[in-house]
Amino acid sequence: MSLIVQKYGGTSVGTVERIHRVADRVAEAKKAGHALVVVLSAMSGETDRLLRLAHEVTASPDERELDMLLSTGERVTIALLAMDLRGRGINAQSFTGRQVGIITDSSHTKARIARVTAERIREALAEGIIPVVAGFQGINERNDVTTLGRGGSDLTAVALAAALKADRCVIYTDVDGVYTADPNIVPSARRLDRVSYEEMLELASLGAKVLQSRSVEFAAKHGVPLEVKSSFKEGQGTLVVTEDADMERVAVSGVSGDRNQAKITIIGVPDRPGVAARIFGPVAEANIIVDMIIQNVSQASLTDISFTVPRADLGKAVGLVQRIAKEIEAKSVAVTEVIAKVSLVGVGMRSHSGVAARMFEVLSKEGINIMMISTSEIKISCVIEEKYLELAMRTLHGAFGLDQSPAA
Amino acid sequence: MSLIVQKYGGTSVGTVERIHRVADRVAEAKKAGHALVVVLSAMSGETDRLLRLAHEVTASPDERELDMLLSTGERVTIALLAMDLRGRGINAQSFTGRQVGIITDSSHTKARIARVTAERIREALAEGIIPVVAGFQGINERNDVTTLGRGGSDLTAVALAAALKADRCVIYTDVDGVYTADPNIVPSARRLDRVSYEEMLELASLGAKVLQSRSVEFAAKHGVPLEVKSSFKEGQGTLVVTEDADMERVAVSGVSGDRNQAKITIIGVPDRPGVAARIFGPVAEANIIVDMIIQNVSQASLTDISFTVPRADLGKAVGLVQRIAKEIEAKSVAVTEVIAKVSLVGVGMRSHSGVAARMFEVLSKEGINIMMISTSEIKISCVIEEKYLELAMRTLHGAFGLDQSPAA
Repeated sequence: MSLIVQKYGGTSVGTVERIHRVADRVAEAKKAGHALVVVLSAMSGETDRLLRLAHEVTASPDERELDMLLSTGERVTIALLAMDLRGRGINAQSFTGRQVGIITDSSHTKARIARVTAERIREALAEGIIPVVAGFQGINERNDVTTLGRGGSDLTAVALAAALKADRCVIYTDVDGVYTADPNIVPSARRLDRVSYEEMLELASLGAKVLQSRSVEFAAKHGVPLEVKSSFKEGQGTLVVTEDADMERVAVSGVSGDRNQAKITIIGVPDRPGVAARIFGPVAEANIIVDMIIQNVSQASLTDISFTVPRADLGKAVGLVQRIAKEIEAKSVAVTEVIAKVSLVGVGMRSHSGVAARMFEVLSKEGINIMMISTSEIKISCVIEEKYLELAMRTLHGAFGLDQSPAA
Repeated sequence: MSLIVQKYGGTSVGTVERIHRVADRVAEAKKAGHALVVVLSAMSGETDRLLRLAHEVTASPDERELDMLLSTGERVTIALLAMDLRGRGINAQSFTGRQVGIITDSSHTKARIARVTAERIREALAEGIIPVVAGFQGINERNDVTTLGRGGSDLTAVALAAALKADRCVIYTDVDGVYTADPNIVPSARRLDRVSYEEMLELASLGAKVLQSRSVEFAAKHGVPLEVKSSFKEGQGTLVVTEDADMERVAVSGVSGDRNQAKITIIGVPDRPGVAARIFGPVAEANIIVDMIIQNVSQASLTDISFTVPRADLGKAVGLVQRIAKEIEAKSVAVTEVIAKVSLVGVGMRSHSGVAARMFEVLSKEGINIMMISTSEIKISCVIEEKYLELAMRTLHGAFGLDQSPAA
């Protein structure tokens, strides 16, 4: 008998009808002889409704109180699913984050899990009860409710799977797995049967919203086999597992695109030691995440420094950078708001050389100018003009053989 | 500095605008130098919405899961009010039933309070924090959430006031106090400045829905001075306190009416010892509450037994009584569905004789036939035809001098 942690997201429990379908799935898995733990999100829209209420009450709601408020959403869904299962004669019981011992630090609204006791889950499993657990929430050492941030229910599921040494953690969502590219942009995109934790992390950080990065990191660290599956259709999903030799046979596993960046260039920066720190220190302090940085070769002791920031933070960043530019006596600040980032990801890059060169060649053949480049061991990203993003993704997807299944 | 527990019901926190008004009141009381504990219900309609969801999910929802579900309503309002207060610079913090140590038995959906630790409230008060507490809920010894039944937030407030030895427990509601009669029926009804716990209990059990009976009992037992006040208008409310000499100057404090009863008569019951037990034993076992019982004088060893039951239970009761009638070889069962009960309540009855006689005389003068009578130390109730209820209430209200204020 294997132990499986199933997690259902907000759209999967968004209506009473959908809760019935989740109960069907749980009943099936139980019938198949598995021991089960179920983790739920709040009904889709509920967290936003509560946030709206909070902001109607006061401009900047206290974060401890926000956690008290937001943690109610999952309590509603776990109670409803447990009722549904019990109504069918299946022994299930709902448990809050507190009751299953998800102990966190005190960073309200974005708490980090310190430890998981899972005592009541073990008791329940021993009694043949299916625990239905509220995702997204825990308690701190003061016994106050905390929440784990957006997508935190994935983290709850993975943390419980790790604590219970579960055989698998299945994340049911509204897509049926991880794709070689966004199928809305690249129609020939294929679902991947397997992907490594590292690839999944790169894809998540590049904007593929299938899994929250923190939960992938947690799964990788504790070796929890993750599966992403559709809660709406039958069939296989994508397994997220430790990298294996098979994966290295293909150079590139996926192509991803990101429109949420903007580019800032500081022109004519005096090329002195410490100048980069004077720029990026204050930017980091303002909680603006800089993704890529490029510094041109210095000419006549002057250099240009370009970097990308999330488009949502652009206004804040530009104001700050203009002040800094004055202080360091740079010439001027230029902004390109509409850029996009196209990336190739694959653990196979470690053993396949020439991926970057081939990528530049493919883009150049299409007449797409590369503004910035950044690389890691298993990823190459290029910043291009936004209007070329779809073309770049489709062309790269074909050029790296992602249109065909790897067996072919 | 006095310590006051304030409790606001569902209509008082039903919208963001109304939550602002509650925050205004809390701010005022704080400004006036009081130490405060605030207890809240769920937004009006929220408990019904959640119950509807539960019944959509399954026909008879599990009660432990219902408590998990229903307890979310108060968590929303306490978080919102605490945010509102903090947004104004007033140091407030929300606490759940668990956090303030409301320990109950395990009778889910109608738990009884076993003890109240109130530890975190004392800590908060010592730090100058206003605790905003979720009403209606506690936890049992297993750490599972329980709820105290409809109107349970009143009980939370009174229990906290008792545990903290508060100077007063103020129940803010949508009426401005306890009246000599329902003003919708008796336009000349007056608000009572003071009423004794016993009178309040009789009025509550007679259907005056101002305060939940259990909370009045709890307040009486622990000597908690209660005040019922409007959360929508300024001015005095009604104090519910220990009976005093002043109250005995008037014979009758209030008139109340109840349409929720129906009458069952078993005709031709063989007049044997133990026959009443054979009738009312099974009725009690079926959880049907019998209010009044009358047995006629026996004629030729046969007697008639009449009794009233809640109209909602009439169908269940009639089926049961018909079976019993057969067993005890009674002649037949008659049902009168549309009866009403009119009652006079007053601690003054203890020292004023002749109240009952005067009541019968007043009703008879209006041509109202009395079907059943029951009396207690401070109450006289008559069952009459339902169509006469308003007339009976208005006439009795005038006849016992309730139209004039007692000073006049």
